[in-house]
Amino acid sequence: MSAVSPLAPAAFPSMPAIDGVRFATAAAGIRYPGRTDVLLAVFDKGTAAAGVFTRSRCPSAPVDWCRRVLAGAGRARALLVNSGNANAFTGKRGAAAVRLSAKLTAEVVGCRPNDVLIASTGVIGEPLDPSKFAGVITGTAARAKPGPWVDAAAAIMTTDTYPKGAGREAELGGARVALCGIAKGAGMIAPDMATMLSFVFTDAPIAAPVLQALLARGARDTFNAITVDSDTSTSDTLLLFATGRAVGAPPIADPRDRRLQPFRAALNDLLRDLAHQVVRDGEGARKFVAITVGGAVSKRSARRIAFAIANSPLVKTAIAGEDANWGRVVMAVGKAGEPADRDRLAIWFGDVRVAVRGERDPDYSEAAAAAVMKRPEIAVTVDLGLGTGRDTVWTCDLTREYVAINGDYRS
Amino acid sequence: MSAVSPLAPAAFPSMPAIDGVRFATAAAGIRYPGRTDVLLAVFDKGTAAAGVFTRSRCPSAPVDWCRRVLAGAGRARALLVNSGNANAFTGKRGAAAVRLSAKLTAEVVGCRPNDVLIASTGVIGEPLDPSKFAGVITGTAARAKPGPWVDAAAAIMTTDTYPKGAGREAELGGARVALCGIAKGAGMIAPDMATMLSFVFTDAPIAAPVLQALLARGARDTFNAITVDSDTSTSDTLLLFATGRAVGAPPIADPRDRRLQPFRAALNDLLRDLAHQVVRDGEGARKFVAITVGGAVSKRSARRIAFAIANSPLVKTAIAGEDANWGRVVMAVGKAGEPADRDRLAIWFGDVRVAVRGERDPDYSEAAAAAVMKRPEIAVTVDLGLGTGRDTVWTCDLTREYVAINGDYRS
Repeated sequence: MSAVSPLAPAAFPSMPAIDGVRFATAAAGIRYPGRTDVLLAVFDKGTAAAGVFTRSRCPSAPVDWCRRVLAGAGRARALLVNSGNANAFTGKRGAAAVRLSAKLTAEVVGCRPNDVLIASTGVIGEPLDPSKFAGVITGTAARAKPGPWVDAAAAIMTTDTYPKGAGREAELGGARVALCGIAKGAGMIAPDMATMLSFVFTDAPIAAPVLQALLARGARDTFNAITVDSDTSTSDTLLLFATGRAVGAPPIADPRDRRLQPFRAALNDLLRDLAHQVVRDGEGARKFVAITVGGAVSKRSARRIAFAIANSPLVKTAIAGEDANWGRVVMAVGKAGEPADRDRLAIWFGDVRVAVRGERDPDYSEAAAAAVMKRPEIAVTVDLGLGTGRDTVWTCDLTREYVAINGDYRS
Repeated sequence: MSAVSPLAPAAFPSMPAIDGVRFATAAAGIRYPGRTDVLLAVFDKGTAAAGVFTRSRCPSAPVDWCRRVLAGAGRARALLVNSGNANAFTGKRGAAAVRLSAKLTAEVVGCRPNDVLIASTGVIGEPLDPSKFAGVITGTAARAKPGPWVDAAAAIMTTDTYPKGAGREAELGGARVALCGIAKGAGMIAPDMATMLSFVFTDAPIAAPVLQALLARGARDTFNAITVDSDTSTSDTLLLFATGRAVGAPPIADPRDRRLQPFRAALNDLLRDLAHQVVRDGEGARKFVAITVGGAVSKRSARRIAFAIANSPLVKTAIAGEDANWGRVVMAVGKAGEPADRDRLAIWFGDVRVAVRGERDPDYSEAAAAAVMKRPEIAVTVDLGLGTGRDTVWTCDLTREYVAINGDYRS
């Protein structure tokens, strides 16, 4: 089960240092023996921060904390992350653990507790002992430096089979700025923050409200357009930090500033890269699947139908079995509750049209469809023939390994 | 994979003959070799009929047909069912196949095609050759007799591992009436007609509009309260036939007639029995799970949360692994989008309270919870602590066998 996903990128990408960001990792023994499970990132003064979080009605204690802190000045001096325990559904003790962790970090970094953002991922419902941090935070802060990113990405993994990172450069008002992001997530992945945890860092001088607008919009077609298993984590957290240290870049305080366009494009591209990496590490995944629905009455309707297909256990198991069972796509379109006309439907697997006008394509070739299904990356396209609404979501197949991984996760 | 579900009833129940109903089965070789795949039921004149169907926007051709026929006088003289091919998403040829099947049946029975109800179950998207019926219908009609019911239940099976039947008796205006029902369904089972196919027969003299009201209301807390995999079939069909042949029973033409009460109770009990049998034969199922949500703001809200739990792959795989992973129940409550307050939540597995007031129960015993999870029948209870809304739904676990069964169904 610990073998690296066959859909993993060939290598961890080359990622630049971000001026104003230093980090280090530690092995606190929270859950996993023999590996790092704590990430501490320290930011220069003046770093702006923004966040997007789970829509769960039962959010974790760190999510509560981050929401409260970011409702203030939108500034951050440190980020503390642990894997192995989500500190979710842990009641007053959970909230106290977050407060103590922030206090410990603030003392070491030399800031206020409200300047510390916190994220936790792992098992739900088990109390997190914050004294585990006490033993490692001072040393971790002392070792903080600008890289390597792969260490940061590895420390936040849970059932992930590979560390996830992405770097981009962009032009901002004539200067070069850099963006680096890491992510973790393999199960309990669904839209409305399907990330579990992802942290993005830039040296661009962008004010917190602008960051927030960029992040919320950027998540929509990236982390909010992926699903592994339709289950929404209590802990989903996507944070964006901007140190403002890029040489020569103009401060941006207006989200409508046209100079933002290249940065926005680079950010969205980075978020999509990380989101796809999360799907590619979906628990037990063997197929990376892009589902596009066109001809819908709206983009929103297209997305709902695409997610009905992407979350259908019968569609996902058929893909796992390399079975071109397009009848299940019809089923999923039908169950979505969105406008659809059976007799106008067309469906493609890859570039093979398998159904048209409400029945099997007259030129249907089982061999051609079967060849598509054998590929590790599969595009499923549906044309509803009703309007111009169009959207794409990404998912993976549902395999016996998913069941095995999740049938005995706690023990 | 063809082993009988460990959750199956010990034996097919004893079911009485229904005066005015005769049936026989045939092996038409539609898909399955060496077994029956056609059921023909013939009704005496004056038989009333009612139906509830899938809410899929892509319904099968037989569903279209039944809806149209039942919108008329609500009478039926015959029911033709086949397994192995759903005749869904088969375009004009599919509709023509239904019309021809009805015509063939009507000629043999001596009625109008519009007196023939039709249901098909099996693969979606493959044309159904109605000439397969032509060869067997005459002989089947000639053999029709009042039993045995187990033959009727077996002929409509697809991936079912056992035939499903239930019989009841009720008092109606001082007379005894009988009800018998059969059902099939093992995958593609979700609310809004989670039955795939079920047919119920009674000798009670109840008019079609009353039957329709009884059936629609009865499905709500039975077939519409079960889920195997959250996938809604294109073919879901629940039909109720009343021959009116019960000796001494008064004709009932008003749904508010108080004499209906014992019949209504017996019908609902029978529907619940059949619905549970469908869940007990859920593909790959090893656990029968009742999920009750109380303390919700409404029954509707309770049901939505119960289904979020019942359809969560992470909850279902944990149950398959006999893992008392109640954190995933918290997750599912949180993702349902319904009012919930994390800090008022309480959760039980069986009679073991595992969580209370937003955290693990202070008296939590892993051993006690683990003992519950080892049982073949598990009750999961959630108290939201908000209101008086309460509802129960039924589901099964998600096993590697489900993935295996569905990863290669067509080939």
